[in-house]
Amino acid sequence: MGGDFAPQATVAGALLALAELDPAHSIQLVGRTAVVEAQLRALLDGELSSHAAQRDRIAIVEAPDVIEMSDKPSTAMRGKPNSSMAVGLRMQSEGMSDAFVSAGSTGAQMAASMVLLKLHPGLKRPAIVTLFPSARHAVAVLDSGANVDCSSDELVQFARLGAAYAECVLGRPNPAIGLLSVGEEPEKGDAVTKEANQLLQASGLNFIGNVEGRDLPTGGTDRQHVDVVVCDGFVGNVLLKFYEAIAPFMIETLRAAGVDAAHLAMALQHLDYSEYGGAPLLGVRGVSIIAHGKSSPRAIKGAIKVALQAVTSGMNDVIGERLGSPKEHAA
Amino acid sequence: MGGDFAPQATVAGALLALAELDPAHSIQLVGRTAVVEAQLRALLDGELSSHAAQRDRIAIVEAPDVIEMSDKPSTAMRGKPNSSMAVGLRMQSEGMSDAFVSAGSTGAQMAASMVLLKLHPGLKRPAIVTLFPSARHAVAVLDSGANVDCSSDELVQFARLGAAYAECVLGRPNPAIGLLSVGEEPEKGDAVTKEANQLLQASGLNFIGNVEGRDLPTGGTDRQHVDVVVCDGFVGNVLLKFYEAIAPFMIETLRAAGVDAAHLAMALQHLDYSEYGGAPLLGVRGVSIIAHGKSSPRAIKGAIKVALQAVTSGMNDVIGERLGSPKEHAA
Repeated sequence: MGGDFAPQATVAGALLALAELDPAHSIQLVGRTAVVEAQLRALLDGELSSHAAQRDRIAIVEAPDVIEMSDKPSTAMRGKPNSSMAVGLRMQSEGMSDAFVSAGSTGAQMAASMVLLKLHPGLKRPAIVTLFPSARHAVAVLDSGANVDCSSDELVQFARLGAAYAECVLGRPNPAIGLLSVGEEPEKGDAVTKEANQLLQASGLNFIGNVEGRDLPTGGTDRQHVDVVVCDGFVGNVLLKFYEAIAPFMIETLRAAGVDAAHLAMALQHLDYSEYGGAPLLGVRGVSIIAHGKSSPRAIKGAIKVALQAVTSGMNDVIGERLGSPKEHAA
Repeated sequence: MGGDFAPQATVAGALLALAELDPAHSIQLVGRTAVVEAQLRALLDGELSSHAAQRDRIAIVEAPDVIEMSDKPSTAMRGKPNSSMAVGLRMQSEGMSDAFVSAGSTGAQMAASMVLLKLHPGLKRPAIVTLFPSARHAVAVLDSGANVDCSSDELVQFARLGAAYAECVLGRPNPAIGLLSVGEEPEKGDAVTKEANQLLQASGLNFIGNVEGRDLPTGGTDRQHVDVVVCDGFVGNVLLKFYEAIAPFMIETLRAAGVDAAHLAMALQHLDYSEYGGAPLLGVRGVSIIAHGKSSPRAIKGAIKVALQAVTSGMNDVIGERLGSPKEHAA
């Protein structure tokens, strides 16, 4: 029920995903049954009529409450115990599903995931990881907004979470971890970042040192690529929203300069967020994928594929191992 | 002597500026006399031969020491008392010049400006303001890197400095001030930002509330434009470097998609930093303009024009009044 284009985009995205996934996989659509059923019928009778074969792999699960964007995340769980958010995540905690995807309120999904899936031991809060398109490859940036005031220890935990994500979901063994700062040298940055630099050097991770804002669009420096960039959720969120807004601005600038639509469409494809699917909430004991509120059916399909990759790669177990690893105790 | 393309770009920029400025204005080129003289002669004998008339408005001032980018800002002043940085700023403190422009080490320029020009009472450090191209108009962002760990009081001072800059240099009366955060609501953000939001509401400035990363490329929200965006120097520096790197990345993406060079050049113009000239160091009692290390002659010309605008508008006095205003004492 969540997201700017729900339930149409969500239901259509599920159909698109099923067409591409192994037949062994199925999807539970959680929400107001009548609404979801009507939407599903409309799509199968209309623009997605070629997807009729996927209908058998869809179950509809009733969840009468709907969390609105205006609801406070902290009270949404108590006031609406049978929202699609709560019902969907509870199913995972009870072993009836393997992963959860939503385009609804990020704050509510975070709160519900913490309550229903629980956090790995030693974590105080989960982190959101998002992919930034770059000239080299997509760079994973975390935290992208779950935590605004972070300690250096938390930045090190983000590095461990991001490393597990890059290995399991992006398929990058021994990922290169950078710490976002205002200069390459370890002594550059604010107090927390300088401290985190020291801790990361002793963390056992493949830590390449500080990276700067300019290394994000290039995917690293001339000498060294970067897979994961660690920062607090304030900086990460500002950067993410800035990046999301800059592509439309530049495209508009180019259109005004007379660049034709076909060329722009080709270029846009490379920068399109929906290519990259959803943003996993890392640190919870399970799989909870945050899809963008403006998700298209294609973006929902992408988020479902990220969820599947997280499940099949055992990301959650890898995170548990890494957070409890002897390396961390030594650091 | 400072900057990646010095002294060629610096000297050429001075000639280009003089050709456009009122004949009453003159420029002092501070550096190793022989080097500067040879460069000036080469340009006037060659590509800038049409600028011979400007030669009389140029004085060359000897400064034997050169600060290298590898020199520590804190020790550069003591170890190299006769650098072009120190000599040029000393001339301003002694009333022999009105403004100083450099493309050299930002850290050294900041340190030398604090020592030789001094700060306005009540300030602990100056702030760097840079202009971000946007869909509406250029947005002034500060601090862009002079201060990494900031208090809420310092963020309020940045707002006052930025307001004076926007009025005097950008010619925007009663500029709209936004506070960079992770959500529009006053209660969104890290601890320092939340506190700063409260202080700014009582500051007497035209404070429009929190703005987000997405409001920078658009120059504000749908309802409200923004002239000045306030943030700490860590976030500001990360964003600035990110923005500088993203245009080349997007241009490369478009080139790969087959967009032709002429269209790209037209679009680039809008995003070209050299259009926007130098970044004033705000808070010092005088005019000290930081030009980008990679400044072209055109960018140097732009920085000189910013310096002139700061002088003729009396920006320094306006800043003095605003920082000492009764409004601040009331806040």
